[in-house]
Amino acid sequence: MAPRYAPSLRSRLAPFLLFLQIGFIVIYAFCTEIENNVQKDRTTFSNFYPEFQDVNVMVILGFGFLCTFLVRYGFSGTGFNLLVAVMATQLAIILNGIESWYYRGKIRLDLKSLVVAEMCASSALIAIGTVVGKTNPVHLILIALLEVSGFVLNQWLLQTLLKVRLLNSIMLLHIFGALFGLTLTWILYRKGSEQQFEKETFDRKTGLFSMLGAVFLWMFWPSFNAILVDDRIPGRKLGAVCNTYLALAVSAVTAAAVSVLTSPKGKLNPIHMQSCILAGGVAVGVSISAVHQPWQAMTIGFTAAVVSTIGFRYLKIHMLLAFQCHDTCAVLSTYGLPGLLGWLAHLILQLIDSDDHRMAIRFAVFHISALLITISLSLLTGIITGLLLKWNFWRPPQDNKCFDDQAFWEFPHLVVRK
Amino acid sequence: MAPRYAPSLRSRLAPFLLFLQIGFIVIYAFCTEIENNVQKDRTTFSNFYPEFQDVNVMVILGFGFLCTFLVRYGFSGTGFNLLVAVMATQLAIILNGIESWYYRGKIRLDLKSLVVAEMCASSALIAIGTVVGKTNPVHLILIALLEVSGFVLNQWLLQTLLKVRLLNSIMLLHIFGALFGLTLTWILYRKGSEQQFEKETFDRKTGLFSMLGAVFLWMFWPSFNAILVDDRIPGRKLGAVCNTYLALAVSAVTAAAVSVLTSPKGKLNPIHMQSCILAGGVAVGVSISAVHQPWQAMTIGFTAAVVSTIGFRYLKIHMLLAFQCHDTCAVLSTYGLPGLLGWLAHLILQLIDSDDHRMAIRFAVFHISALLITISLSLLTGIITGLLLKWNFWRPPQDNKCFDDQAFWEFPHLVVRK
Amino acid sequence: MAPRYAPSLRSRLAPFLLFLQIGFIVIYAFCTEIENNVQKDRTTFSNFYPEFQDVNVMVILGFGFLCTFLVRYGFSGTGFNLLVAVMATQLAIILNGIESWYYRGKIRLDLKSLVVAEMCASSALIAIGTVVGKTNPVHLILIALLEVSGFVLNQWLLQTLLKVRLLNSIMLLHIFGALFGLTLTWILYRKGSEQQFEKETFDRKTGLFSMLGAVFLWMFWPSFNAILVDDRIPGRKLGAVCNTYLALAVSAVTAAAVSVLTSPKGKLNPIHMQSCILAGGVAVGVSISAVHQPWQAMTIGFTAAVVSTIGFRYLKIHMLLAFQCHDTCAVLSTYGLPGLLGWLAHLILQLIDSDDHRMAIRFAVFHISALLITISLSLLTGIITGLLLKWNFWRPPQDNKCFDDQAFWEFPHLVVRK
Repeated sequence: MAPRYAPSLRSRLAPFLLFLQIGFIVIYAFCTEIENNVQKDRTTFSNFYPEFQDVNVMVILGFGFLCTFLVRYGFSGTGFNLLVAVMATQLAIILNGIESWYYRGKIRLDLKSLVVAEMCASSALIAIGTVVGKTNPVHLILIALLEVSGFVLNQWLLQTLLKVRLLNSIMLLHIFGALFGLTLTWILYRKGSEQQFEKETFDRKTGLFSMLGAVFLWMFWPSFNAILVDDRIPGRKLGAVCNTYLALAVSAVTAAAVSVLTSPKGKLNPIHMQSCILAGGVAVGVSISAVHQPWQAMTIGFTAAVVSTIGFRYLKIHMLLAFQCHDTCAVLSTYGLPGLLGWLAHLILQLIDSDDHRMAIRFAVFHISALLITISLSLLTGIITGLLLKWNFWRPPQDNKCFDDQAFWEFPHLVVRK
Repeated sequence: MAPRYAPSLRSRLAPFLLFLQIGFIVIYAFCTEIENNVQKDRTTFSNFYPEFQDVNVMVILGFGFLCTFLVRYGFSGTGFNLLVAVMATQLAIILNGIESWYYRGKIRLDLKSLVVAEMCASSALIAIGTVVGKTNPVHLILIALLEVSGFVLNQWLLQTLLKVRLLNSIMLLHIFGALFGLTLTWILYRKGSEQQFEKETFDRKTGLFSMLGAVFLWMFWPSFNAILVDDRIPGRKLGAVCNTYLALAVSAVTAAAVSVLTSPKGKLNPIHMQSCILAGGVAVGVSISAVHQPWQAMTIGFTAAVVSTIGFRYLKIHMLLAFQCHDTCAVLSTYGLPGLLGWLAHLILQLIDSDDHRMAIRFAVFHISALLITISLSLLTGIITGLLLKWNFWRPPQDNKCFDDQAFWEFPHLVVRK
Repeated sequence: MAPRYAPSLRSRLAPFLLFLQIGFIVIYAFCTEIENNVQKDRTTFSNFYPEFQDVNVMVILGFGFLCTFLVRYGFSGTGFNLLVAVMATQLAIILNGIESWYYRGKIRLDLKSLVVAEMCASSALIAIGTVVGKTNPVHLILIALLEVSGFVLNQWLLQTLLKVRLLNSIMLLHIFGALFGLTLTWILYRKGSEQQFEKETFDRKTGLFSMLGAVFLWMFWPSFNAILVDDRIPGRKLGAVCNTYLALAVSAVTAAAVSVLTSPKGKLNPIHMQSCILAGGVAVGVSISAVHQPWQAMTIGFTAAVVSTIGFRYLKIHMLLAFQCHDTCAVLSTYGLPGLLGWLAHLILQLIDSDDHRMAIRFAVFHISALLITISLSLLTGIITGLLLKWNFWRPPQDNKCFDDQAFWEFPHLVVRK
């Protein structure tokens, strides 16, 4: 039936997973312990936990179900997303803790380190959106591990060289993930992709599953943007929640309107309604520490949704035909462009707000440098990952097996009892 | 294919949405700011946020997926629900803040104002349940905006004239929404609706999606009823949660039993199990400030489920045949009757509890007046909205396009690449 | 069409539900009140509520959707799960409160009593996993009530005789539920079950619904394990959350690897990816009060996933062919074996940790006694329940009506309007 793929899972995926997992357990045994500082623990826990669970739902359920729209890719979409997310999170906890391990001998785990690690993992999940369906799970895990390493390195550079705060550096995950993914899919381009793959489509039922994922992302995005905001300054966390909520509301409305306006038949596109409604959350997230008024968030949400929907409608095909860059989930329009827009909005708002001319220029230089470093590093790690993945050792699926669960999952007629 | 509808979206929906959305952004720019009172902020935020997210999930996911049971209406059910909810919430924030804007110049946004606005929006979503499938999205948004305006006016009247507290006035949303919706669908009656519409049915898979919505509503209803309960009086919030939980438990069991008893074939009806299990939550919500003992909540839940299931089985068809009132989601039985029952339970419990004879009569007069005002205003705004919607300018869908996503959404065979 | 089943619901289920429900309301009227202790209330409520809702989501949605994988059993899977869960919870609240009722005259309801009751209910839901599809709803409710009674009795014995703490005794729910269910399905064995039932299979769409349930269980399992951990000792609750999260992460990866390795075609099995990824949560839950280091949790998660996946692949069929024990949801491998493994891990960790030799032996004796009591009582109540259910009075479904919603639910062609 699929003689070439089955062995690729057994001889590649299983040993790879077991090796990595046992490796992680050994590393965790020597380097980690649970944070048990009396003062820090109690209030932090109960304040943090609900938002932590919201982010967890976004990463595991939201991203997982978002790509179930592909008609025959539901199990892979959700199952591989779970695998990738937990591998990336385990790696990110260690990488983020290297400094603390170096100075204190142990990485202390608390909810914040889990959340930061899940956010790093979400940057890998965004990157994977570009190659979903054209790769096998070994590819996906390799991509995730390399992407997370690159992203953590990027964060460390920004925090060390440019003194960017954690909140601002981590929110660049949308830009980093999208650019990494685009570079990757450009390198992994398959001849003939200009014609749609046979199974690269959606139907009524699978469209509803991905609507479910989209709705969870939409609902919990305020938690994603607010969880790392310092709650010691009154009103900041509340502001992050309200502003993100309003930006999301505006981008849902705007995405619907633009989707209708740009449609040849004047109808709504379900996939736009699932991806582009999130643009406001992405853009406001990147600029969250500079947005102070509701109308600013709403304007950012409006612009982001316009850019994202138009990008989805026209740019996705253009990228494919002109640059041979086949972007399955339109990651460029959903995360890349809104992320860049948020970066720009941050710059503008900060310049307007600042009274001191010298400080403003200093900020602008730092802000632009942060973007340039992020772009360079994401392109660089994307190229490295792409070249590594071109190696046939990993056994990419054949074209006619793309976007199909059958290559990787046992189906009922295969599990009848002997 | 559908030459009449496509232009209705492009020439009606898109400009309408953009116009409204830009209008909202301008209003928000001049009238709103984030609450940043030092004292109020910190504890309120962490106490409020988890319940706010529960309500958010109910409004966006719960109501959205509840009406996906219609076989070919999944994208419209969830997608239009999102559009309507965010438009109604944005309007409700402004309308609820008019008084504060008048006295202080600014509407201060905090989590409470978001929650109250989402509750007003949920009253519009209930109203829309009556006309789902027989309207286009422009209709739905018009309905939502007018319904929310009427409901906020109603709240203002009750709070100003009768000194009804916020919690009690807002819980009338079930009664207001249901009566508004019924008036509306009575005015918008289409000849020939006595025969079931071709696509007005459910199947196994779509039934499970609506079960998902129902389950989320069921699980988070305790948050819906408790979130506005004053937590400074010890035990009140806990009481609201426990009582709502028990009422919901009882109504799930009772709805199943009554559904079997009234079935010609002696079987359970899946749609009853999705709507009528919520009756206890509705009824206890309306009477939440008078329910103090678990058995009271359970008795209310029991009665509400009996009334609701019998109403769903017999009254829905009777309303259609006798009064030409086609109620798609049986809003009368799901929200209207349980809401009225809750109002009655509130009256009875308060009269029994009160020692002072004069106070009791005074309460009864106020309580009855509140209901009469609510009924009058809901019927009145329902009639106005209905007459406005009868105008052909809005281009209602033809009968054979009712309950069908195809009229509004692009489907795969339409998005093949050129 | 189904002349034998319809009357079984009308003449058995409906009166049975109404009788029980009215009975519960009467008992609640005489025995319960809401906790309104001023000191206890406020902080407890806001600390507890988010985790309570997580557990609620697991019990109602998680377990409900987990068994929707059966192609034609979606409504029964979710609907009966809801019925069973609320009946079992109502009973468990009363049974858990008997002592407090005896001494104080009233059972005081608070969030903790709701949570403990829902956990007892989840033990019944696990037990039911063995007989899903081969029973009618009256069976299921009888099983749940008897199982919960047995489990509460077991807890009372452990707490009274052996001074086991609540947290440790309640976590035996996985072992109790699984063994109870296995005994039951062994007694209720139907001749001919060695051949797969006609409808005992899954497909793409129903598999995604059960993936949804699995993902919710996976995400909220940290809340399930941590909610009863004492938060007055700093770091304990945080530790429970982090350790459960890591164990779940490891078991997701390990389950995938082992599923591929043991597959004849070298592919992943979707049902393994839904059940065995939870093994780490089960095992760490049972040993939660002895697990202090992340690597311990990860090792337990690793072992549990290996045992669980191998058990699912080989043991399930062996149990059926050798012991005539047909276990629909592979409860033995999903909850039973990981539970026993967790018990063993608890023993080993506690022995290693303890300095005092005498205390260690004392602990081991108590720990082994606790397991023996639990096993005896679960087998005993399982046998009693099984014998009661063999009585034909309850009208079990015929073999060809097993695993089919049609026997119990009205479908569209039956609800056309007259």
